[in-house]
Amino acid sequence: MATSPGMGRSSLRGRSLIAGQPSADTSTPIRSANPLTGGFNDFSGYAASSGEVADAARRAMQAFRVRPTEQQRAAILEGAAQRIADLGDELIAVVRAETALPPARIAGERDRTVNQLRMFASLARDESWVEAVRAPGDPQRKPQPRPDLRRMLRPIGPVAVFGASNFPLAFSVAGGDTASALAAGCSVVVKGHSAHPMTGELVAQAVAAAVCEAGVDPGCFSFLHAGGARDIEVGIELVRSPDIRAVGFTGSPRGGRRLMEEAARRDEPIPVFAEMGSLNPIVVLPSALRENPAALAQSIAASVTNSAGQMCTCPGLVCVIESVQAEEFARELRAAIRAAGTHVMLTAQIRANYLARLAEIRAAPGIRETAAPLDSSQPNKTGPVAPTVLFEAPAERLSPASTLSDECFGPATVLVRCRDMDELLAVVDRMPGSLAASVFAADAEDRDARGLLDALAERAGRVILNGAPTGVEVSPAMVHSGPFPACSRPDSSAVGVLAIRRWCRPVCYQNVPEAWLPAQLR
Amino acid sequence: MATSPGMGRSSLRGRSLIAGQPSADTSTPIRSANPLTGGFNDFSGYAASSGEVADAARRAMQAFRVRPTEQQRAAILEGAAQRIADLGDELIAVVRAETALPPARIAGERDRTVNQLRMFASLARDESWVEAVRAPGDPQRKPQPRPDLRRMLRPIGPVAVFGASNFPLAFSVAGGDTASALAAGCSVVVKGHSAHPMTGELVAQAVAAAVCEAGVDPGCFSFLHAGGARDIEVGIELVRSPDIRAVGFTGSPRGGRRLMEEAARRDEPIPVFAEMGSLNPIVVLPSALRENPAALAQSIAASVTNSAGQMCTCPGLVCVIESVQAEEFARELRAAIRAAGTHVMLTAQIRANYLARLAEIRAAPGIRETAAPLDSSQPNKTGPVAPTVLFEAPAERLSPASTLSDECFGPATVLVRCRDMDELLAVVDRMPGSLAASVFAADAEDRDARGLLDALAERAGRVILNGAPTGVEVSPAMVHSGPFPACSRPDSSAVGVLAIRRWCRPVCYQNVPEAWLPAQLR
Repeated sequence: MATSPGMGRSSLRGRSLIAGQPSADTSTPIRSANPLTGGFNDFSGYAASSGEVADAARRAMQAFRVRPTEQQRAAILEGAAQRIADLGDELIAVVRAETALPPARIAGERDRTVNQLRMFASLARDESWVEAVRAPGDPQRKPQPRPDLRRMLRPIGPVAVFGASNFPLAFSVAGGDTASALAAGCSVVVKGHSAHPMTGELVAQAVAAAVCEAGVDPGCFSFLHAGGARDIEVGIELVRSPDIRAVGFTGSPRGGRRLMEEAARRDEPIPVFAEMGSLNPIVVLPSALRENPAALAQSIAASVTNSAGQMCTCPGLVCVIESVQAEEFARELRAAIRAAGTHVMLTAQIRANYLARLAEIRAAPGIRETAAPLDSSQPNKTGPVAPTVLFEAPAERLSPASTLSDECFGPATVLVRCRDMDELLAVVDRMPGSLAASVFAADAEDRDARGLLDALAERAGRVILNGAPTGVEVSPAMVHSGPFPACSRPDSSAVGVLAIRRWCRPVCYQNVPEAWLPAQLR
Repeated sequence: MATSPGMGRSSLRGRSLIAGQPSADTSTPIRSANPLTGGFNDFSGYAASSGEVADAARRAMQAFRVRPTEQQRAAILEGAAQRIADLGDELIAVVRAETALPPARIAGERDRTVNQLRMFASLARDESWVEAVRAPGDPQRKPQPRPDLRRMLRPIGPVAVFGASNFPLAFSVAGGDTASALAAGCSVVVKGHSAHPMTGELVAQAVAAAVCEAGVDPGCFSFLHAGGARDIEVGIELVRSPDIRAVGFTGSPRGGRRLMEEAARRDEPIPVFAEMGSLNPIVVLPSALRENPAALAQSIAASVTNSAGQMCTCPGLVCVIESVQAEEFARELRAAIRAAGTHVMLTAQIRANYLARLAEIRAAPGIRETAAPLDSSQPNKTGPVAPTVLFEAPAERLSPASTLSDECFGPATVLVRCRDMDELLAVVDRMPGSLAASVFAADAEDRDARGLLDALAERAGRVILNGAPTGVEVSPAMVHSGPFPACSRPDSSAVGVLAIRRWCRPVCYQNVPEAWLPAQLR
């Protein structure tokens, strides 16, 4: 068993944090795997018991009922941001020991997480997000007087948050779901990801301390360790709890669909906002290949291999129209993919799923594996190492039910050759829902590019000209969702200010005196 | 078999209208029941076949892909409004023959439907509903340039609309769901309600003619007759169709939940916006009883018996705190309910369900039936006649799982007596989600009223001071939804401008040149 750097200094106790208090149940031990070593980190923790799950949800509902003010919510979010920033190198070391992500990537994600918490703190103070609408009454109207009507968004209730393994900070314990739900005035119960229990607990301590400092009911934030024999159960129990009113999830299509089904089966169904990753197709038009096919191939390969392809926006399909330039582009892409070598994956499970998916694609008719590192058949045995892979296929072999249309979570992509524009449009027409889709074209004179962007806008939450789908800007104009299977709720967004709306519902006040209305409606 | 007035003059053919063309399949005959006579109207029609359902959905998708412009959508909605208005007395007669609703109520509902179509026509022309957001790029930003991002709402695809029997115009073929979906740029396939096939077909002809006149693909609107052996099947097949992307439903909790489950089971789940009616509680505070308990009882009884209680906002629960005044109020309420007598219900099925629900409530422990018309035990055999009923119960007998918490669709309500304010708050605390909830109080000095409005706002889409829950104003500030079981999607509204958002999802355009962007984003 390997010991990771920095562990000794940390405040980790291996306990869930329920309304600010460490949990007591020790019946289900959990461990922290280290993908760099293939062993385990020096950590012993315990998954939350059924009673602890119920307790966290009940405390969340109690806290919700004495809702923090806008100022208190902002204080929680700013306090959490500062405390996470203050964790400094310890946090970087802990995340690295649990994910094998490079320190620079972790620091970048940490900064993004901190900025996101601060953005939602501003939003919590800002009254504009409640979408206040006032329609004054008219007592003289015939046949009936027109009532005075005012509406605004109100928080929906306690939210269960399921973090992702591939963004252990930005989409986990204090990620976008938690930040937006707290900003809206909801309580949050986080189901910790079993791939990064130390990271989760460290961040949860920061949030819980900020909650305590803000002087609000500590039940507004709880963190539940999951893993071991109770990895699935903790989450399912949380979704079934009558005190939970909405679910935020980032992860695999299988996990997301399972939670959607659980939530739909409740006596009182609740919404599930599941962001499940997707195919994120790229279309490379002939005009884009005229100038520098090598540079384009490099840039696409970089998007495919970014974070070992473990990005929800990793491009899983690249379409070209056959030509001499397309052949050159394919050669360059093969070289770039081959040069990318092997990667340490986040977890042994992700690696196993990735290798199984590669095998499925290899077995699909008409498809060829055209680039992979030499050592792909003998992955390093001490850690979850996996190869970068390029597949190639003619468009005519892509059946509507082709296995190619599903996400392959890892550093692999499929280059699809189309005979002509019609065949390319037919491929686009069969594409499943995605988070993002890109078109590469030489210039704004390419009319095909405009038509393709329109067609792709029917299938993705974001369309990009001359850029890779990876890289999701935190912006008021960002949309991070898309038609199923990319997202369970394509009307929402998991990133940007739209994210807060997920945890709200509109309420109308009819003929209520000004003095009694929430401040935003006066 | 009775013949209804005006039938001879009509253009009714008993056929579904698929992309403007009458259907051909005659294998499943349907009839039009007349609740006034207990017999049938002079109408013979045919339910849509499986092939016709699939055809309507496919044509809807084809039409969606060549989306009508904003101006064309407005023209369709305005044309439909005018044609429905032009149907004049024939429409009133047909609706009356199928629903037994009073002509004045039908005319009022017709006007509301026409106004609603015109409101959505204005909205279709107005660019504000797309929620355009522009976030300019910054090429100089480090470490990466900030991309130019713009987002707007885009239509989701073909929508299946299920109308309600209790609002045969305003929530049926050309009701709020159809109007808002067409305004958004979606195609619509309506599953006609088997309780008003003549009304449905007449209105569908008006919409189809307006679509034809607007010069757009006729597939953007289809109407499917349902009923007979295929009443359920037509709807289920529609929800299962891969060409359908969202569902709008107004009706019973059982029907709504069934469609939610069907939609969730699809390979690609789709959203269901089901407005299912609710308990709509009224709280009468002591201060409201000081002045004129008789007038208050009259006004609440009028809300309970409005349209024979067949309103989604009918108040099913009235809470008071025990007192001498409360006793007087109860006496007056009994008298008003007794005086309301019996009602012809919309359909024999609704009457049967209502009588069964009354029997369930009567059997609940601790509850007494305290007012009902003398003839309630011997309903008129020629039509679906049913009694107005008042039940009374002490609050302590209302268990959380009490059958009282479910909607009783018809002219009945339960008067609940609470010992004190604490017990009243405990009752409110256990209330299920509602569309609306009312508090009656003498004046704005009553602090209890304010607290109750806040508590009820957690359980309803709309809270009202000193007004009945019935009466849903079409307004930008209206919210017609509420927590489950009132609505499957409490974040939406079935009435008002918010309704259009149900049929949309946001799309982000990254680094797309101005000239290629939709006009609203330039």
